[in-house]
Amino acid sequence: MPDTFHVTAIGHVITGRTEPIDDEWDSVAASIVLDERFDAEALMGIDAFSHVEVIYLFHQVPDTEVESKARHPRGNTQWPRVGIFAQRGKGRPNRIGATIARIERVDGRTLHLTGLDAIDGTPVLDLKPVMKGFLPRGDVREPDWAAQIMTSYW
Amino acid sequence: MPDTFHVTAIGHVITGRTEPIDDEWDSVAASIVLDERFDAEALMGIDAFSHVEVIYLFHQVPDTEVESKARHPRGNTQWPRVGIFAQRGKGRPNRIGATIARIERVDGRTLHLTGLDAIDGTPVLDLKPVMKGFLPRGDVREPDWAAQIMTSYW
Repeated sequence: MPDTFHVTAIGHVITGRTEPIDDEWDSVAASIVLDERFDAEALMGIDAFSHVEVIYLFHQVPDTEVESKARHPRGNTQWPRVGIFAQRGKGRPNRIGATIARIERVDGRTLHLTGLDAIDGTPVLDLKPVMKGFLPRGDVREPDWAAQIMTSYW
Repeated sequence: MPDTFHVTAIGHVITGRTEPIDDEWDSVAASIVLDERFDAEALMGIDAFSHVEVIYLFHQVPDTEVESKARHPRGNTQWPRVGIFAQRGKGRPNRIGATIARIERVDGRTLHLTGLDAIDGTPVLDLKPVMKGFLPRGDVREPDWAAQIMTSYW
């Protein structure tokens, strides 16, 4: 019984990057403009937080590139073949991305960020303030490939 | 132009908690069982990570409880009125939850977790391994209410 649901973009990403390049995301500034059905009040108080988690859609990934089993991250055979839910690649069921970005400033319905790995026009599904109580509790352990893949990411 | 998309549950939460109580989520174990269209391969290698981010739906929240402007977190007037995107409450547009839980073990299509704040039957939209490179960079700043709200949460 797979349950299907509708979600609607709450806003979109505006940035100079129009192609999903793998690395160096910090080199481009990004902002999120809330859809017109919201007003500035929906962001009220977000500037008291340093970081926001952006939940978005990898909207340009075609069905044919959605993996539901396992693959090498970035197709790199030097890294182990791992399940799609053991990696963060964009070709995944539901095509959902989740990234913690730094809040630079708020201007009406526009949130200015750095460190957002999403291309221009990306539909945003949610924004959540980063609270310390929701960060990982206890030591964070990861395999070697997970550190290697991030070397030039930001 | 609000863009609307379909998302489909990749699995569901199984836990002893059937009501959305605010606090003490660590007191209940939880597991996620992948939908039958997946096989165990989709989770292959996830046990090399200590934590996983679970993206899910607050499926029991009715339309009438979805806030699109601002409100006091938990309705508590001792805390400031803040925008829905400056808090993590469940009555939010698209009803998406995102929580980092600790991976206890994997058993076929079942992922056993601690520290998941979702009730029994919750539809899961995605699972992402927690990589250090995706945690907040720089100091994390939050308002006082955000620390207070977490006092008894786990």
